[in-house]
Amino acid sequence: MGKEVPPARTPAQRLSYFRSRLGALGLDAYWVTGRPDVRYLSGFTGDDSTLLVTPERAALVTDSRFTEQAQEEAEVEEVFCRRAGMAHTVGLLCRQMGLGRLGFTSPHVTHADWRALGTEAGGAELIPLARGPAEVMRERKDAGEVEAVLRALQVAQEAFKRFEAGIGPGRSEKWMAALLEWEMRRDGAEGAAFETICALDERGSLPHAPCTDRQAGPDSPVLVDWGARVGGYNCDLTRLTATGTMPPLILELAQVVLEAQEAAFERLLPGVRCCEVDRAARAVVARAGYGRNFGHGLGHGVGLEVHEGPRLGAGEESLLLPGMVVTVEPGIYLPGEAGVRIEDMVLITGEGHRVLSSLGRQPR
Amino acid sequence: MGKEVPPARTPAQRLSYFRSRLGALGLDAYWVTGRPDVRYLSGFTGDDSTLLVTPERAALVTDSRFTEQAQEEAEVEEVFCRRAGMAHTVGLLCRQMGLGRLGFTSPHVTHADWRALGTEAGGAELIPLARGPAEVMRERKDAGEVEAVLRALQVAQEAFKRFEAGIGPGRSEKWMAALLEWEMRRDGAEGAAFETICALDERGSLPHAPCTDRQAGPDSPVLVDWGARVGGYNCDLTRLTATGTMPPLILELAQVVLEAQEAAFERLLPGVRCCEVDRAARAVVARAGYGRNFGHGLGHGVGLEVHEGPRLGAGEESLLLPGMVVTVEPGIYLPGEAGVRIEDMVLITGEGHRVLSSLGRQPR
Repeated sequence: MGKEVPPARTPAQRLSYFRSRLGALGLDAYWVTGRPDVRYLSGFTGDDSTLLVTPERAALVTDSRFTEQAQEEAEVEEVFCRRAGMAHTVGLLCRQMGLGRLGFTSPHVTHADWRALGTEAGGAELIPLARGPAEVMRERKDAGEVEAVLRALQVAQEAFKRFEAGIGPGRSEKWMAALLEWEMRRDGAEGAAFETICALDERGSLPHAPCTDRQAGPDSPVLVDWGARVGGYNCDLTRLTATGTMPPLILELAQVVLEAQEAAFERLLPGVRCCEVDRAARAVVARAGYGRNFGHGLGHGVGLEVHEGPRLGAGEESLLLPGMVVTVEPGIYLPGEAGVRIEDMVLITGEGHRVLSSLGRQPR
Repeated sequence: MGKEVPPARTPAQRLSYFRSRLGALGLDAYWVTGRPDVRYLSGFTGDDSTLLVTPERAALVTDSRFTEQAQEEAEVEEVFCRRAGMAHTVGLLCRQMGLGRLGFTSPHVTHADWRALGTEAGGAELIPLARGPAEVMRERKDAGEVEAVLRALQVAQEAFKRFEAGIGPGRSEKWMAALLEWEMRRDGAEGAAFETICALDERGSLPHAPCTDRQAGPDSPVLVDWGARVGGYNCDLTRLTATGTMPPLILELAQVVLEAQEAAFERLLPGVRCCEVDRAARAVVARAGYGRNFGHGLGHGVGLEVHEGPRLGAGEESLLLPGMVVTVEPGIYLPGEAGVRIEDMVLITGEGHRVLSSLGRQPR
């Protein structure tokens, strides 16, 4: 990776930085919830666990199913096996430790847990944040994380080649999605990064098409939006393939979409505002007369979550920084007729960008 | 189904009953969140949508991705396409409708959404409930729901037979889980009901074993815990198979577990307390000297969610009722050595019970 992105860090190094941020946020402690944040800061890969972090101490709170695994994996001062509910237990710990201002990520915590924690936490004041510090840190991948994303991409891309050879007329959308997921998992993916989309014919115009029993005809285009999760990290790609000859309309739309991608790539530089990249791609689509047929944002960050920061879209004023990994996925949707989307993954480097995905983009 | 369980009801009939309950709960309206509850009451199968229900009116709040689908599927007075955040939009509707006491299910709503709704909802008072009325209704399946569970079971069981024929020495846990999921999905399952467990050898002693790259030996026992989701409904089964000859210890433990299942079946009658069923199975395991090696509850309800009410466990005083569908899954776990769990699904009927799963239980 060289000097392109921050060097690989251990969970302990991330946790140390996280702790150093608490003071500036006016907090005595943070309740870290959500599997991605917990994994990022502690190295623990299990589920249903949270971290209570103070400047001096970090406790992983888990249950009997995960205690052994947590003691092996988690780089924290203490692993606490809870007997009662999670929020209840964290509240008791807050009281024992005499904590004052406790931050938490408001969109990650249920109202029930917030109430349970508040009831138990003694004098602690609960401070809701719209985004937690770990989420912000996770936007910039280090070299180890970029390697993990590349492994996920490799599995997803190799699986796609076998998938293309395995589909054909008469196969349903559901069957195709199942085949692609099997091809990823037999190669070592923990699973699909999200619900695989295989949209036949005019169903490609639905940006969020769930797979149906609809069967492919002799020359059906197939819009495939898929990703693999490997070692906890995700990838996210979209390609067009066909069960026979690709319809000319798809090829025509794809030329515009590929040109829009190129325009976006040119703006993928450190220091550029996210909205500018979106605007550059959108301008190409609009010039071709399809401005009203590209209804979603251009892209999003990908890492331990398949959708995370930053977002490439209108109104997103934040700046691109080295280490960010984003999708670039312009689309043109003609309802009831056809849809085209092509999606790649790009790393922002110190000098510019590097396209991480390597499958041919041209529909065939 | 005959008179065994309540007759099949439409979503509109369920919604009508739900509305009739609001007054008794002292509520003017309910904010129904979570895909299972929304589907159950409205028939809408999409994601990211909620219902605002008053005694006179039900509005499905969704976004542009799902508006068309909602207008086709949802049996409600109004489909509302939101432009802003979900909680924000529901809050505005509450204000427009002049609602007073608005119930919501506290463990389903994030702190952030609760705040956003409260800010927008004008004079509405937000009343948190630990369990929503729809969740309680869903515990008793009607005849149509039981048919849906049976379809899921059929797919899962047929897939398991092909899976057994396809595994062998040298295959990893991850590969096996991928194969079983592929076999379910190619037969029409929307997906696995949950993360499939294929635990080799002594790893069967981990009740929640994630699949690893560990490979089967010539005579490895495989503990398989799996389920299919078909038409939104789930099933949940556990069986033991082997890549060669089943170790005698597993066969010995399985006899105890099967006897514990039989003892539970005898108590599966309407009017019996849930904890009694758990106790009956546990007594058999304890008598065989493994009381400390059966650390989890005996079973749980299954339907639109793979884990829902009722729970069969210590301290669960609620009564079994006709239409309830539960798992019966006693286990014996010898850490570092071996684990056995056998899990079936049972319907409570008017007169007793009916075992819904039909795969042979004896490990072979």
